[in-house]
Amino acid sequence: MDVSVNADEPMHTLTLEDMAALCVRALSKAGATQTVAEAVARSITHAERDGSTSHGFFRLSGFIASLQSGKVSGHAVPRLSRLGTSVLLCDAQNAPAPHALELAIPELIEITRECGVAALVMRNSAHFAALWPEVEMLADAGLVALACTTYLPAVVPFGAREKLFGTNPLAFAWPRAGKAPMVFDMATSARALGDVQIAAREGHRLEPGVGLTAAGDPTCDPNEVLAGCLLPFGGYKGAALSLMIELIAGALLGQKTSASTAESDNRDGGPPPRGELILAFDPEILSGGEWQAEAERLFGRLENQPGLRLPGARRHQNRASVTEVRVDPALLGAIRAYCES
Amino acid sequence: MDVSVNADEPMHTLTLEDMAALCVRALSKAGATQTVAEAVARSITHAERDGSTSHGFFRLSGFIASLQSGKVSGHAVPRLSRLGTSVLLCDAQNAPAPHALELAIPELIEITRECGVAALVMRNSAHFAALWPEVEMLADAGLVALACTTYLPAVVPFGAREKLFGTNPLAFAWPRAGKAPMVFDMATSARALGDVQIAAREGHRLEPGVGLTAAGDPTCDPNEVLAGCLLPFGGYKGAALSLMIELIAGALLGQKTSASTAESDNRDGGPPPRGELILAFDPEILSGGEWQAEAERLFGRLENQPGLRLPGARRHQNRASVTEVRVDPALLGAIRAYCES
Repeated sequence: MDVSVNADEPMHTLTLEDMAALCVRALSKAGATQTVAEAVARSITHAERDGSTSHGFFRLSGFIASLQSGKVSGHAVPRLSRLGTSVLLCDAQNAPAPHALELAIPELIEITRECGVAALVMRNSAHFAALWPEVEMLADAGLVALACTTYLPAVVPFGAREKLFGTNPLAFAWPRAGKAPMVFDMATSARALGDVQIAAREGHRLEPGVGLTAAGDPTCDPNEVLAGCLLPFGGYKGAALSLMIELIAGALLGQKTSASTAESDNRDGGPPPRGELILAFDPEILSGGEWQAEAERLFGRLENQPGLRLPGARRHQNRASVTEVRVDPALLGAIRAYCES
Repeated sequence: MDVSVNADEPMHTLTLEDMAALCVRALSKAGATQTVAEAVARSITHAERDGSTSHGFFRLSGFIASLQSGKVSGHAVPRLSRLGTSVLLCDAQNAPAPHALELAIPELIEITRECGVAALVMRNSAHFAALWPEVEMLADAGLVALACTTYLPAVVPFGAREKLFGTNPLAFAWPRAGKAPMVFDMATSARALGDVQIAAREGHRLEPGVGLTAAGDPTCDPNEVLAGCLLPFGGYKGAALSLMIELIAGALLGQKTSASTAESDNRDGGPPPRGELILAFDPEILSGGEWQAEAERLFGRLENQPGLRLPGARRHQNRASVTEVRVDPALLGAIRAYCES
């Protein structure tokens, strides 16, 4: 779903505020309410701010396409209800995930503080972003959080020849007193699709183990991987995790797995509405109050290793300093032209 | 902690019943009550029955050593209490994990059916076995389950030079109507320690990426890995998972991480008491009742891939046919001599 930049043209610079305003204009034109447009614009600009460009401005085209095709709803009102004492349901009604998450996460926080551990069952949510925003929202409230979702098939299970799994990301956040939380957010594929697209554009070969040709043979040629499929990270173990995510973010929630999602997707380039599972833990309740010091001891041991950086550290460093970002001028021109049309 | 077999001597055959009886005798002699001894004997014989020999009879020596040293208690009565509406605490009081789990899992099942999702916070449990027994107990009750635990440092974080993580296994079970559940149970290290010990004994080299020398250099020599350390599976992604397990099965539960556990461990070869996190989900509640058909569609797609086997399938095949197992005669002799002594 990543749109490749054109390496031959110089990049254009936009402030985050200007980018957000442009996103809101474009999404509103495509049929989103102001509230929905602002939520998606926040998701996109926060990704750019953190240096996660593959989840940034390039995602706008897909959202516009899916708002136009009607696959994604720009005016749906997600419905919250309680499935069980510790289970919150958010039926996003095909709304973009950032909108549904902004409504559901505050209630998940309350339930987690009441119960100790709680789950958000997200259904029919058009997720087209990173997962760190939702786990960071929970960590900012002092909770430990896990999130995962499916997508469309891109990954061949270990030992198989057919794409059956999505890139199925898993994100985790751990709150730290007076510091940014420790956060990771990773695809369970060997590489993100965007990395392979960049390698193809720049003429680099991939390391072994990233993907297969359309005929199912190993290849280091990024063009062959794009025509074929990605491999799970870490062989059969990564494939087992990816399968787990198909089950717990798909079937467990009464939602489809990636292979079934593909059967009904209109392939407009935007995100098919589907499931996401978010788990939150109140560490005060689970630990009896003794959780921060031991975690900080481990972080200290890790930070003592020369050259080792905690997961998410670079993203938080970017966040502290970035106020403007570079954008492909062709994409920027296309979005501006769409707004004027 | 795996005891290597002697490849030069023929193996001795024992029925599972005789093995269980021998385990109970040896553990009772080492100070375990009949209830505790029977729980550990079940854990060991079930591992042997399923072909998980590295968690089978070889573990008995470590349990005996730790019962003798007092690190593990053979007569502790684990204490159950409720930390929150959806959180069960089991303080195992240094009892072997199989005993604590047999007491706690039935209550976790009840809480999960009440709440939808629930957590078992296990503290001070001497875990020295696979994790599939606990997730399978939950799947047998129709629940989806996840479990993870720490250990002693054996794995060097990606980019680091010091062993800081345990082999930190993660297990998952998904119930299937009329069939054995789909279960995986995997270390987050590139290889189990037992595999490396076997390669050393048999003179095989390891594939690249399994471990480092004591000086921190990559090696395919299993003896150098044994003197050095294991790597996480799947590079920085596997390392992130291992770090997550240190946090959620350690600090989150008011328990130590692997590196801190090592500081106070007496190195008697048996399991240091520590934390385990078990999560259970009621799929009827989370899905609204529509979870089995979609999961079976995915399993069907996977089983249609030539040569692909679902995780855990081989173990369940063994279970259906195995009534006796092969045991290293030297180990068997040592255990019998201990019982007579």
